[in-house]
Amino acid sequence: MQKQILLKNRPEGTPTHNDFEVVNVPIAKSEAGEVLIKTVYISVDPYLRGRMNDAKSYIPPFQLNEVLTSGVVGQVVESKSSFFEKGDLVLGALGWQEYSIANEKSVRKIDHTIAPASTYLSVLGMTGLTAYFGLLDIGKPKADETVVVSGAAGAVGSIVGQIAKIKGAYVVGIAGSDEKVKFLLDELGFDEAINYKTQNVKEALKEACPKGIDVYFENVGGEISDAIFPLLNNFARIPVCGAISSYNNEQVDVGPRVQGYLIKTSSLMQGFTIGNYSSRYSEGAKDLATWLQEGKLKYEETITEGFDQTIDAFLALFEGANIGKSLVKVSNIEK
Amino acid sequence: MQKQILLKNRPEGTPTHNDFEVVNVPIAKSEAGEVLIKTVYISVDPYLRGRMNDAKSYIPPFQLNEVLTSGVVGQVVESKSSFFEKGDLVLGALGWQEYSIANEKSVRKIDHTIAPASTYLSVLGMTGLTAYFGLLDIGKPKADETVVVSGAAGAVGSIVGQIAKIKGAYVVGIAGSDEKVKFLLDELGFDEAINYKTQNVKEALKEACPKGIDVYFENVGGEISDAIFPLLNNFARIPVCGAISSYNNEQVDVGPRVQGYLIKTSSLMQGFTIGNYSSRYSEGAKDLATWLQEGKLKYEETITEGFDQTIDAFLALFEGANIGKSLVKVSNIEK
Repeated sequence: MQKQILLKNRPEGTPTHNDFEVVNVPIAKSEAGEVLIKTVYISVDPYLRGRMNDAKSYIPPFQLNEVLTSGVVGQVVESKSSFFEKGDLVLGALGWQEYSIANEKSVRKIDHTIAPASTYLSVLGMTGLTAYFGLLDIGKPKADETVVVSGAAGAVGSIVGQIAKIKGAYVVGIAGSDEKVKFLLDELGFDEAINYKTQNVKEALKEACPKGIDVYFENVGGEISDAIFPLLNNFARIPVCGAISSYNNEQVDVGPRVQGYLIKTSSLMQGFTIGNYSSRYSEGAKDLATWLQEGKLKYEETITEGFDQTIDAFLALFEGANIGKSLVKVSNIEK
Repeated sequence: MQKQILLKNRPEGTPTHNDFEVVNVPIAKSEAGEVLIKTVYISVDPYLRGRMNDAKSYIPPFQLNEVLTSGVVGQVVESKSSFFEKGDLVLGALGWQEYSIANEKSVRKIDHTIAPASTYLSVLGMTGLTAYFGLLDIGKPKADETVVVSGAAGAVGSIVGQIAKIKGAYVVGIAGSDEKVKFLLDELGFDEAINYKTQNVKEALKEACPKGIDVYFENVGGEISDAIFPLLNNFARIPVCGAISSYNNEQVDVGPRVQGYLIKTSSLMQGFTIGNYSSRYSEGAKDLATWLQEGKLKYEETITEGFDQTIDAFLALFEGANIGKSLVKVSNIEK
């Protein structure tokens, strides 16, 4: 038997434990062309909140009473595929459960001798690629330009700011605690960092961005984002990656309309999801791995231990509890 | 002596006659390299409202107690330039006055035997070019895509819709009277048109756009624009040209934040002003002239007679009184 986590209710507002159900089910048997995978790491991500609503989006919503899924690193414990052997580490979009059956075509092997297995869900995975393509393909920061990133100590934001530094930009991060601000300045080398919970963001941004803002990497939406628009330089670029401040809203999310600001500055806002770049993943992965090896890119992971903590780890995202990528460690890798 | 119109006050909210002053001043003398120009047509445009505020934008604000300026077609009555002769028709950014002195480098000759002089301020001028580059460079409509344009019977909107039709798109216009709706459908060949003053825009858009919206050419902002976002298709494009609904706002213009919509659909919003395309004007002018000659492009002008009506013609823009380009005819062309 194994545990798995189902979506019991579509959350209204902020999700709670009541929206999920942990059930015990038998471990299925693998068939030809399939592997049985023991879950090692589960990725918990803010975007999953959107999939819990019954709304049209870029990915279909989760179904009620079905197992939740996200990025998972696991280890093959039984293989009926010629592509995999027992002990192989694999990456895939798998269930929030202790064991998964996967078709051989739906997972790919990873090499944890090059980089720790967890990084395939963080800096070298979708998170790193999201930062990479959003910033470089849409934001296009040039040397000495001012790049502001919100959710700066989070999974994507912490990588965005560092890539912007690699490209020679002046980088300002917005985050939600003094600990995170210190992390951005001392560990990641941001030029300036703002604690939006204790500082007046408008005033702090003006001071931190004396030359205006050329690129704003949007992770949060809401009032923090509103404070950006009056400071945009001409031809500014805004990759719109996330809007976590509104994910749990029950009312329409209302704020100053942006059209006037975009016209005055000929600025661009571009929403994106990492799937848009699937044909270019290897390009991004290569650069990220190189920067990691060269020590130019640091990564931080908030790892919660134990499958039973998965829901808590997910809920904590909306309290801004994590620094860097948030993962749940379900089991140890067996040699 | 001649009349000229000065900005007396920075308008608060909707401009009124009290914000302007008509004065009588002597006609200046031209010096070497200059021409004296008799004003024939004055262009009145919504964007001029923004220049009446004392705010940073893509063009400097008008100064108090100085003459207002906009696009003007005039006729040379005295030339101290080897480039111009008496009788030449010229185009330039000139004052709201009956006569102007201009440096020979600040105006250019136009040929009104090819197209009526007024068209150099409308379909063949900045207005037509704004529609052309905004739609084609940012909107990039493909055949059979759905293009929605607001302010559709206005100067820019009426050209946008027709260019979209030329490119094979399905075109929906939003305008503010039944007369305008009829004009869009019967004269300009739009596929659908909505009267936002008498119809529920949300419902009407849903019905008019059964395949969703691929391109939204933004001229108005406000609630009309709010109704667009839930209908965007994946990878939709929104050239942001104007937001006339907010130009006279005294309060912050508030509405649903757009980030969530942009993320869900990977859509793009791009503000622009025609000056961004100055190196490509000839390309646009050539296409517009060709379409005009081929009868594929129609234009409408609302021409107000008499210099004394200039302020009224400007104020009428904010009541949506005009169909097509709004111009003031100040004098006749002399043969």
